[in-house]
Amino acid sequence: MSLRETLNTIVSSVDGTLTAIIMAYDGIPIDEVAVKQTDFDLQLLSVEYAAVLKEIKRATEVIKAGEMEEVSISTTQIRIIVRVLNDDLFVALIMKNDGNFGKGRYLLKLKSYELAKELS
Amino acid sequence: MSLRETLNTIVSSVDGTLTAIIMAYDGIPIDEVAVKQTDFDLQLLSVEYAAVLKEIKRATEVIKAGEMEEVSISTTQIRIIVRVLNDDLFVALIMKNDGNFGKGRYLLKLKSYELAKELS
Repeated sequence: MSLRETLNTIVSSVDGTLTAIIMAYDGIPIDEVAVKQTDFDLQLLSVEYAAVLKEIKRATEVIKAGEMEEVSISTTQIRIIVRVLNDDLFVALIMKNDGNFGKGRYLLKLKSYELAKELS
Repeated sequence: MSLRETLNTIVSSVDGTLTAIIMAYDGIPIDEVAVKQTDFDLQLLSVEYAAVLKEIKRATEVIKAGEMEEVSISTTQIRIIVRVLNDDLFVALIMKNDGNFGKGRYLLKLKSYELAKELS
């Protein structure tokens, strides 16, 4: 499957998904599939959270806690699940706060191997 | 229940827990219950991740995504689940990578109301 097809599989399988995006830590998107219209500025959101992930990666290195694998952030309005793909890239699933968090997390983990292989 | 008792309930109920800690965003701990001996410098870990949470809080405000509620970070060695208690404080559960993530997340959410009430 291509990157786009794998992202499509994820977004169409997880209720409440707004977008799935593959991104570099510098905030530059590699590929993206958006599902729903939303009030959020998803580009700003991606760039802001990419900076946050870089910070988490740095902190994880400082405390020698191994390699960062997954990060999730829930607010009163949205949920974001991030899986690290390689040293440069991650995949993020952005969903509404009442989206299916468990399924999103499972599917992102499952598909991250395919995505990482596709990008290697 | 006191803060300490509630933290004790959480750590004794979730397999793989290393420590549960209530902390301010400036990295100063309010109360803490440690269960297992660990190679990690838990104090350094708490301070580093408190700085990260402050950054996530800021990013969440920038993108107008509501209030931050929960953050989780998984590495190849540890898992951290954080619930926001109020504007100043959060509770964090730090566990081994193979700890019971689902139960930890559930219990932290359930008990966060009690903890917030105790701290108000």
